[in-house]
Amino acid sequence: MERQRARELGIRIGRLEPGTHNAITDVSGVKVGHSTIISGEGDLIVGQGPVRTGVTVVWPHSDGSVTADPVYAGYHQLNGNGEMTGIAWIEESGLLTSAVAITNTGSVGVVRDALIAYDRDRFTYEREPDFHLPVVGETYDGWLSDLNGFHVKPAHLYAAADSASGGPVAEGCVGGGTGMNCHEFKGGIGTSSRLLVDELGGWTVGALVQANYGMRHSFRIDGVPIGQEIGYEEVPSQRAQPIKDGSIIVILATDAPLLADQCKRIARRAVIGLAKVGGYGNNGSGDLFLAFSTGNRGMIAGDVDQPFPVRSLHPDAMTPLFEAAADAVEEAILNAVCMATTTTGVNGRTSHALPLNRVRELMAKYGRGGPD
Amino acid sequence: MERQRARELGIRIGRLEPGTHNAITDVSGVKVGHSTIISGEGDLIVGQGPVRTGVTVVWPHSDGSVTADPVYAGYHQLNGNGEMTGIAWIEESGLLTSAVAITNTGSVGVVRDALIAYDRDRFTYEREPDFHLPVVGETYDGWLSDLNGFHVKPAHLYAAADSASGGPVAEGCVGGGTGMNCHEFKGGIGTSSRLLVDELGGWTVGALVQANYGMRHSFRIDGVPIGQEIGYEEVPSQRAQPIKDGSIIVILATDAPLLADQCKRIARRAVIGLAKVGGYGNNGSGDLFLAFSTGNRGMIAGDVDQPFPVRSLHPDAMTPLFEAAADAVEEAILNAVCMATTTTGVNGRTSHALPLNRVRELMAKYGRGGPD
Amino acid sequence: MERQRARELGIRIGRLEPGTHNAITDVSGVKVGHSTIISGEGDLIVGQGPVRTGVTVVWPHSDGSVTADPVYAGYHQLNGNGEMTGIAWIEESGLLTSAVAITNTGSVGVVRDALIAYDRDRFTYEREPDFHLPVVGETYDGWLSDLNGFHVKPAHLYAAADSASGGPVAEGCVGGGTGMNCHEFKGGIGTSSRLLVDELGGWTVGALVQANYGMRHSFRIDGVPIGQEIGYEEVPSQRAQPIKDGSIIVILATDAPLLADQCKRIARRAVIGLAKVGGYGNNGSGDLFLAFSTGNRGMIAGDVDQPFPVRSLHPDAMTPLFEAAADAVEEAILNAVCMATTTTGVNGRTSHALPLNRVRELMAKYGRGGPD
Amino acid sequence: MERQRARELGIRIGRLEPGTHNAITDVSGVKVGHSTIISGEGDLIVGQGPVRTGVTVVWPHSDGSVTADPVYAGYHQLNGNGEMTGIAWIEESGLLTSAVAITNTGSVGVVRDALIAYDRDRFTYEREPDFHLPVVGETYDGWLSDLNGFHVKPAHLYAAADSASGGPVAEGCVGGGTGMNCHEFKGGIGTSSRLLVDELGGWTVGALVQANYGMRHSFRIDGVPIGQEIGYEEVPSQRAQPIKDGSIIVILATDAPLLADQCKRIARRAVIGLAKVGGYGNNGSGDLFLAFSTGNRGMIAGDVDQPFPVRSLHPDAMTPLFEAAADAVEEAILNAVCMATTTTGVNGRTSHALPLNRVRELMAKYGRGGPD
Repeated sequence: MERQRARELGIRIGRLEPGTHNAITDVSGVKVGHSTIISGEGDLIVGQGPVRTGVTVVWPHSDGSVTADPVYAGYHQLNGNGEMTGIAWIEESGLLTSAVAITNTGSVGVVRDALIAYDRDRFTYEREPDFHLPVVGETYDGWLSDLNGFHVKPAHLYAAADSASGGPVAEGCVGGGTGMNCHEFKGGIGTSSRLLVDELGGWTVGALVQANYGMRHSFRIDGVPIGQEIGYEEVPSQRAQPIKDGSIIVILATDAPLLADQCKRIARRAVIGLAKVGGYGNNGSGDLFLAFSTGNRGMIAGDVDQPFPVRSLHPDAMTPLFEAAADAVEEAILNAVCMATTTTGVNGRTSHALPLNRVRELMAKYGRGGPD
Repeated sequence: MERQRARELGIRIGRLEPGTHNAITDVSGVKVGHSTIISGEGDLIVGQGPVRTGVTVVWPHSDGSVTADPVYAGYHQLNGNGEMTGIAWIEESGLLTSAVAITNTGSVGVVRDALIAYDRDRFTYEREPDFHLPVVGETYDGWLSDLNGFHVKPAHLYAAADSASGGPVAEGCVGGGTGMNCHEFKGGIGTSSRLLVDELGGWTVGALVQANYGMRHSFRIDGVPIGQEIGYEEVPSQRAQPIKDGSIIVILATDAPLLADQCKRIARRAVIGLAKVGGYGNNGSGDLFLAFSTGNRGMIAGDVDQPFPVRSLHPDAMTPLFEAAADAVEEAILNAVCMATTTTGVNGRTSHALPLNRVRELMAKYGRGGPD
Repeated sequence: MERQRARELGIRIGRLEPGTHNAITDVSGVKVGHSTIISGEGDLIVGQGPVRTGVTVVWPHSDGSVTADPVYAGYHQLNGNGEMTGIAWIEESGLLTSAVAITNTGSVGVVRDALIAYDRDRFTYEREPDFHLPVVGETYDGWLSDLNGFHVKPAHLYAAADSASGGPVAEGCVGGGTGMNCHEFKGGIGTSSRLLVDELGGWTVGALVQANYGMRHSFRIDGVPIGQEIGYEEVPSQRAQPIKDGSIIVILATDAPLLADQCKRIARRAVIGLAKVGGYGNNGSGDLFLAFSTGNRGMIAGDVDQPFPVRSLHPDAMTPLFEAAADAVEEAILNAVCMATTTTGVNGRTSHALPLNRVRELMAKYGRGGPD
Repeated sequence: MERQRARELGIRIGRLEPGTHNAITDVSGVKVGHSTIISGEGDLIVGQGPVRTGVTVVWPHSDGSVTADPVYAGYHQLNGNGEMTGIAWIEESGLLTSAVAITNTGSVGVVRDALIAYDRDRFTYEREPDFHLPVVGETYDGWLSDLNGFHVKPAHLYAAADSASGGPVAEGCVGGGTGMNCHEFKGGIGTSSRLLVDELGGWTVGALVQANYGMRHSFRIDGVPIGQEIGYEEVPSQRAQPIKDGSIIVILATDAPLLADQCKRIARRAVIGLAKVGGYGNNGSGDLFLAFSTGNRGMIAGDVDQPFPVRSLHPDAMTPLFEAAADAVEEAILNAVCMATTTTGVNGRTSHALPLNRVRELMAKYGRGGPD
């Protein structure tokens, strides 16, 4: 059966509507690019392969260097068994000064330094920045890929960053998500968005996840216990050690004019969406969440000695944004799993895709409507 | 229909079993006491009533002064529109040095100072503590009760603290939960527990909540969209302004020998349970969570200059505790709503109990089994 | 010798100039009021006295209810052995929605609830707030005062709040500082301010401290080791147990248009000033710091659904504010000690004032100039 | 004049005594290694040089892989304009699972990935770790060195890690500190230690800093205003833009048996030492502090399902450790500046060493004794 997004399967998460592409790119200016690295098969030979990995890049805007023109951002972690570089400065200043890259655990460094080189190669400045503090997150793909072979090169970061665009976003086994697993099915990249009606501000919230976490038993779609229904005898798991777990990186974007601490509040709601799909933030998981707002700009463009105007939302106006963020994260995870395809990697290991026909059956069994 | 706990309705949250009383008191030594204040009806006259409020006290152990014999504890907040005193010291030292009291928003101060007086009245010391930093949380009951009348007195704290016991815990409209609402039904106090099998450590995790948060539409029981099915025409809401929200205090206890930072990790999982019932941590909500461990003791009893032994869990052993904590919180909230009874308070306002017969119908409609 | 402020003694802290009153009230609109409670002498009889305590109130602006018209604020703690209520909401929303009161450790509750009553008594609203989350800090005065006698009453909070004014601020043994000790001399309330020249923004930063911490040996004035020079045989200490320590509450105000997270950065610099005087944040100390900005207003006054404009400073413009904040805190602590007078309290215990003539001698001995 | 450590100049910081080497290596088992990269002179050609940089590695113990045998650790940042990788997991688990490397801002990535490769190359495991989350900090040396030329290679990390040893530690222009400036003098690596007498536990605390921060005017040695006395006409500054600032990385080690949250408390005291030398945590500065304890071991060595014993200190026993940590950091910074030598780098820029003969004069002028 062809892969379909959750919504094509008739699944509706929450009461809010998605944007045009049901993607993080529905937030105007946000761009996503992937560089997917697939090579080899058979036995693992460290340094040779097989390789099932990549890099995904999220640009918070389309106006050139993010170092020169940062956005407000906030960070939250549910469980910190992972890495996201650049967070010290985001926590301090509230400014995201870099495109955001996501890759595998062993390649954070090379991608981090490549983001510096990329910024210097691609952009020109009136006054060149003294230094960069790039943002790179990761999840672990060593079950399917030669993680310790260090196959991600600066060129992959360049390719992902250069190819980034608005519009529809490739999901599943692409970019940083190529070799990931989620709830003991094949996982990867997923995205979704939500619109608030004009009376609630008319804002858009988008989410993009690299989903690589979770146990089978707790996996739910809109409350339906899919993971309990699809046993290991029906779809084998990739896990040898059931207590171990992966990670999830969540990037949230909105055009609502938020301040940095309001972005942090948005990031914290990623837990809500994750919880409903079945995440518990297991000890082995790096559940790291970054939210940014495109609704304020120019925060470092002007004179140092002149206060600059920004806009903020009334605290009570955050409530609908929280719902939008949580629901977008929930659907983005489902999209990652629904769009990912069965993948065989190192040592012939196979991570199986979620069987979508079974999902349709089970949704109906538990009283949920079919597709449109 | 008589009120029943969620489990009596056939509802099973997660895959772990509860303890003897399915209550926070299943953690050995933990005691709970309530002081319920109900008086008057009709129009609100500030200072006179009507009053629908109270105090609930949770003792982390049964061995006298918690100031003299503290336990490790950790704190997390999903949304901070609320108060819990005593957190600065818990964050610093990792030590809970006080019984935990929960009351209404306007009475935090009186209960806080009363806890100091209580400790001095009830306990004797070899060396009296210089000062106390008591822990008091709150949620807002001003829709049903004369919040600004300051009806909670030190005697109510004394009564709740003195009457505390192990064993079954009264739920619903009792103690601090007397005047609370949850998901636009009547809310209040709820509790639940989970046991880990011996191979996972054999530990017990218990939760107690004072639930006063949430919108109708997002309310779910084990994934079933109860709140969407029971409309305002069927059960009216207490809300005039739908964007406003209340709060939830969560107390988590375990006998697993955790350190303070591990308790904090447990507290963070309260969000998981809350999310599944339908909480988003709305802006108006004070979602404040405290977790403690009874598995280490004597941390300040010995000589200052001698290191003392404590026990910790392997990081990977935290994972089943996270699941236990999240599931216990989820069921504790459901118990609060299932056990609370329709209540009329100031100005004749009525907060309606969740109709349990409808819950049974809806659970069946959505493919869930009936009661045992 | 008459008490003098540090600057009158010829002491110059840092390179920036103070404002008109060298006080937190140099930040336009900020008001300070004290209620001082002194009664009895001789043996301690709990509930009777002697009493050496009080309440100090800092108003962030002079425009009525802070609940209706909050300011941005941020919190930091060096060591959390103390209490400041209301922090959860400040951390969440960035909004200080209350006047700030400082009192003794045992009276936080009564003052907290009294702030609610005060707000309701003194202000009228178009739309009354549902609830209040007042901010009350404390330090411990039980060595000189009948702390456990609960002598602070709501009327004292009312008196401090009502009497608050701009202009010069009484220092030393007044208000919440009445019974405090600092570096084993008599301590209490102190204040100071700094002005930035126009090229650095022209902003004012003010600090007010309730200083009750620290060991004799580490006490320094502008780097001069005063505490090492003035031994216990010259000026006896109040300490029986040298390892124990008190606390310090710092309130920082500025008219620079900061966002909440920028206020937090300011609060964090209180440590710098404290360190230079000789604070280490000892385990027994509650070193709790709150900073607010009066430079943005109206954050909750408008429509919930309309973004509102605020102003922020360029990140690089924070640097001079950090220096101003640190230096103002350093001088405020010195003022607390220089202005406090020898005080005898419970059981005839005496806390001795810093001998200012010796300070003059020692400053000269260590190469520092005399007074202007 | 030959470079001398602060103590050789007669400077005594605080009242506690240092250990044998007055170095972080006085904490038993701690090892330090440097790899210094110096090449070229004259005009900057990016990718060619001149190069004045390096890598410093701190091993928390001498017993092989830190991934297999971690130590408790805690993190604090005064100002986050910098990078330290691996912090998410330290904040979550309290475990430092990596040697700590310090390098320049542009080389964090390559060193981070090299630490993974190094661990896999040098150590063998019964059960190989799934992944690594290495810890790499940085400060900016682009004023003297071709920062954007990416001259640090994996081999430099290997060399620093392999050459690490106990005993005396090279200071000044070595390893990661090669190209650094501090208070507008030449800066770099510095270290110091403190011993607690047996009655206070007999513990050792050591600090190592990579010091690259600070303005001339605020620089003080033991309270003496050296930076005010030595003007730019006497010793030129490296700064063109006086508002910009560098960074400081602080590594604190102790053999006191601390838990992770107690390590965090130690890390927070780095601010105290930094403040006394003259740091304000300027906006441009990454002031990132990591503290670890060697006093508990074996935290992940045993069975996952068995609690393991660790030791903790009584909260009141932390106070002398705070003093030791703050004083060791203060002296470590002074050692970095006192031991660093005048260095010329890109475009003929020269960073001048602190003139030690002037320091001796000035200390005497301000009433401080000479060398032993």
